[in-house]
Amino acid sequence: MQIDFAAQIEELKARVSSLEQGGQENKLSMVVFSGDLDRALASFIIATGAAAMGMEVMLFFTFWGTPLLRGPGKTAVGKDLMGTMFGAMLPKGAGGARLSKMNFAGLGTSMMQGLMAKKNMASLPEMIVLAGELGIKICVCELSMSLMGFKREEMIDYPDLMYCGVATFLEQAMGSKIQLFI
Amino acid sequence: MQIDFAAQIEELKARVSSLEQGGQENKLSMVVFSGDLDRALASFIIATGAAAMGMEVMLFFTFWGTPLLRGPGKTAVGKDLMGTMFGAMLPKGAGGARLSKMNFAGLGTSMMQGLMAKKNMASLPEMIVLAGELGIKICVCELSMSLMGFKREEMIDYPDLMYCGVATFLEQAMGSKIQLFI
Amino acid sequence: MQIDFAAQIEELKARVSSLEQGGQENKLSMVVFSGDLDRALASFIIATGAAAMGMEVMLFFTFWGTPLLRGPGKTAVGKDLMGTMFGAMLPKGAGGARLSKMNFAGLGTSMMQGLMAKKNMASLPEMIVLAGELGIKICVCELSMSLMGFKREEMIDYPDLMYCGVATFLEQAMGSKIQLFI
Repeated sequence: MQIDFAAQIEELKARVSSLEQGGQENKLSMVVFSGDLDRALASFIIATGAAAMGMEVMLFFTFWGTPLLRGPGKTAVGKDLMGTMFGAMLPKGAGGARLSKMNFAGLGTSMMQGLMAKKNMASLPEMIVLAGELGIKICVCELSMSLMGFKREEMIDYPDLMYCGVATFLEQAMGSKIQLFI
Repeated sequence: MQIDFAAQIEELKARVSSLEQGGQENKLSMVVFSGDLDRALASFIIATGAAAMGMEVMLFFTFWGTPLLRGPGKTAVGKDLMGTMFGAMLPKGAGGARLSKMNFAGLGTSMMQGLMAKKNMASLPEMIVLAGELGIKICVCELSMSLMGFKREEMIDYPDLMYCGVATFLEQAMGSKIQLFI
Repeated sequence: MQIDFAAQIEELKARVSSLEQGGQENKLSMVVFSGDLDRALASFIIATGAAAMGMEVMLFFTFWGTPLLRGPGKTAVGKDLMGTMFGAMLPKGAGGARLSKMNFAGLGTSMMQGLMAKKNMASLPEMIVLAGELGIKICVCELSMSLMGFKREEMIDYPDLMYCGVATFLEQAMGSKIQLFI
């Protein structure tokens, strides 16, 4: 009988280990695809809220989200024609993001920013600084960097900034309780 | 030997309890960020579908999604200039939502609504009523209410309507099997 | 004492089984709602990346995503007026998708497509073929097909194409570690 217990306990241990390894942690993984001010604000409100609650947070910036991370005073040399064009047309950092609706040639965006300041809400660039202080990890999509011709020396100084591909996002997302695409 | 079994069983119990507490329930948590008719329809089709399958559903309305919950015949007094402007510019309830594409100054939206009626599909305002009957919980983002100057007396009558912040969404989402941002 | 062990082990087994049944597999379920070239590309980069990592992948095409699956050389007969209009106005397959921003009457889209070819990236139609080879399952939303008046004979030849409703998506999503709405 005792041998029977031992075998059953071993079997249970293996099943529990398997469940533990496959489990999802108190982590949030988010794809920041959009470069619109409203969606970017939503990303950072969710991300900093999660970090404040003790969750580990990873943001994966791709496509239109990528230029949000350009450093305002930074430049890069040796760009090809396409990279120079994209560089000129896309917002130069989070401060240049616009509302997806009711932008009205920038007026709606300025109104929203004024309103946020009046309500003592952090601006998008301020939220990015806060995110860094809270230990939020940022991954920038290498494919988007390459497509848009961005160079690493153009990007903001951020405590935990990495350059990675979709596989890194997927690995993180699989082990996260919450995943969002914004 | 028996003491050994007891210890192993206790250890397993603790690990299983930990897994159970960290587990995600048959719940769906969704951020309704968009105020576009097409995306709002998708939210409610997914939400009511999930509720019909026995899932617990929580919708978190934020940013452009917030005005979808304005009550058509409702008004509020004591608004400041900004709140009055937002109030005038944003759709007055779900009936005022427009398609994100092919709107054609409202013509495309009317065509889609006519088509939905012809196919016996519920309209967006009807789906919101259905959602209430199915026990779907709605949380309205307090920050969006404050930014857009909306007051609670302007919002629809809905059985299970709460006002909350991002922390409430994150707590619900962590315990949900499905989380979406729309 | 031995009876006590047996009972405790049985109780643990039941709890572990319950955890195992409620668990989420290495699966990715994604709603492809958008028909924009940029968002569709993101969907397929994530989907093929996940499949290459050994994950099971299911894409649920709905609303504006549906016309991405129209076969370029395919036609259908017996359409009503509305179906004919939608058919004429919506892109005829993945090759007709446009950027959500910086489209500039097609110029931005062509520039992006040229850039992708130069960087040896697969085009959207090529990625759909690759997805089929990788065993990615595609579900097309029946409600969207009906609303837009599309017929099955118009859709692309794809190895694992099904027509289904939101319940199928939700069932798959509940058992998936990652769910995204794009």
